[in-house]
Amino acid sequence: MSTERPLRTARTGAAPTERVRLRRKADRGAYDRDTIEGILDRAYVGHVGWVLDGQPYVTPTAIWRVDDRLYWHGSAGSRTLRETKGGMPVCVTATIVDGFVLARSGFESSMNYRSVVALGTAREVTDEAEALRVLEVFVERWFPGRWPELRPATSKELRQTTILSIDLTEASAKVRAAGVLEEPEDHAWPVWAGVVPLALVAGDPIPDEHVPAGMPVPGHVPAPGARVQD
Amino acid sequence: MSTERPLRTARTGAAPTERVRLRRKADRGAYDRDTIEGILDRAYVGHVGWVLDGQPYVTPTAIWRVDDRLYWHGSAGSRTLRETKGGMPVCVTATIVDGFVLARSGFESSMNYRSVVALGTAREVTDEAEALRVLEVFVERWFPGRWPELRPATSKELRQTTILSIDLTEASAKVRAAGVLEEPEDHAWPVWAGVVPLALVAGDPIPDEHVPAGMPVPGHVPAPGARVQD
Repeated sequence: MSTERPLRTARTGAAPTERVRLRRKADRGAYDRDTIEGILDRAYVGHVGWVLDGQPYVTPTAIWRVDDRLYWHGSAGSRTLRETKGGMPVCVTATIVDGFVLARSGFESSMNYRSVVALGTAREVTDEAEALRVLEVFVERWFPGRWPELRPATSKELRQTTILSIDLTEASAKVRAAGVLEEPEDHAWPVWAGVVPLALVAGDPIPDEHVPAGMPVPGHVPAPGARVQD
Repeated sequence: MSTERPLRTARTGAAPTERVRLRRKADRGAYDRDTIEGILDRAYVGHVGWVLDGQPYVTPTAIWRVDDRLYWHGSAGSRTLRETKGGMPVCVTATIVDGFVLARSGFESSMNYRSVVALGTAREVTDEAEALRVLEVFVERWFPGRWPELRPATSKELRQTTILSIDLTEASAKVRAAGVLEEPEDHAWPVWAGVVPLALVAGDPIPDEHVPAGMPVPGHVPAPGARVQD
């Protein structure tokens, strides 16, 4: 991690800017690095917001963090990536759904979740060595030990891939991790209330037809039943 | 469903506008009503993109569909809702993650998913009867039979709630539901390849502390182990 970068305001626990400060439910907001990075490192998919001719677009894409930067990538032919790579302001939001919160009124019903909103100016990774380094982090984040086993990337593949990133200096997290919160006069209303936990869970791995008979499923593949965003 | 509305181009299977037409991986695109509504009806959370002073913001929120419209809501004090309710162009994207696709190269590794991108102009629900009608659809979509059991909404609660929607006329779906797709020369590379299915799964319901002893968990609560986005 570069030490020349200005200390992120996020270290202090205060909102780095007004644009990402939580107004409502401020108690659900967090601006510290551990919380923000912890959520980003568990959210496989983010949603990238960008603007063209005044119209916002929101594109889902795999995201990953390397040090102080948040990355996403795709085909060099992707419209989203072509439009955004030239220094466009973007917003990347990552959300993990943790549960339904069923109150006795609709008004107090809610959900448990962890989310991060990060604003920044998209920068393209143009150096091949940097591209390989950040792609390795991406693969290893989810499948530790898989990167060295893969058929190495070719220069042609790297040319066909656009990788973008933003600096994680202007970000906030929002977390709800609680039970039913309602007024005491509702406690006796005769309906069940509580939390239904939700988790993204891996199923049985399905081998590709060309996997040789007897080749074991490697340990870096999430086991059936494993929660992949905890 | 209003019959005066122009027939959605989406019925024809063609992109309704260029703005939502898929350029790359066009075979993953779909514009028909069944596909789009099927995804929206299973995605609990959407990401709403909006623009303020040229900066895009992406806000996660529960979404639900009623006939030809897509809804989301929150506190009347929410910044996102206040900024967008005055007829602002928005983009609502819903994404369901269905699996990791582990190819023998990083380049061909991918994910299985279902997503919808919908563009529109946000309209506020200002009529109390309409608000109650669409909130009922939201609750019943996920917890059938729960709405009539809830403590009824008060006028004060409805005043404190802002509900927005867009017309589903300009939308597209993108779906990847396949195995590993790679060049034949990679098939012999000695690493396991395949798909790891992922699903959002319900855990054991956690009753609120004020639930009377012996009150059963109602049938509308997803059973432990149930997949909630199938």
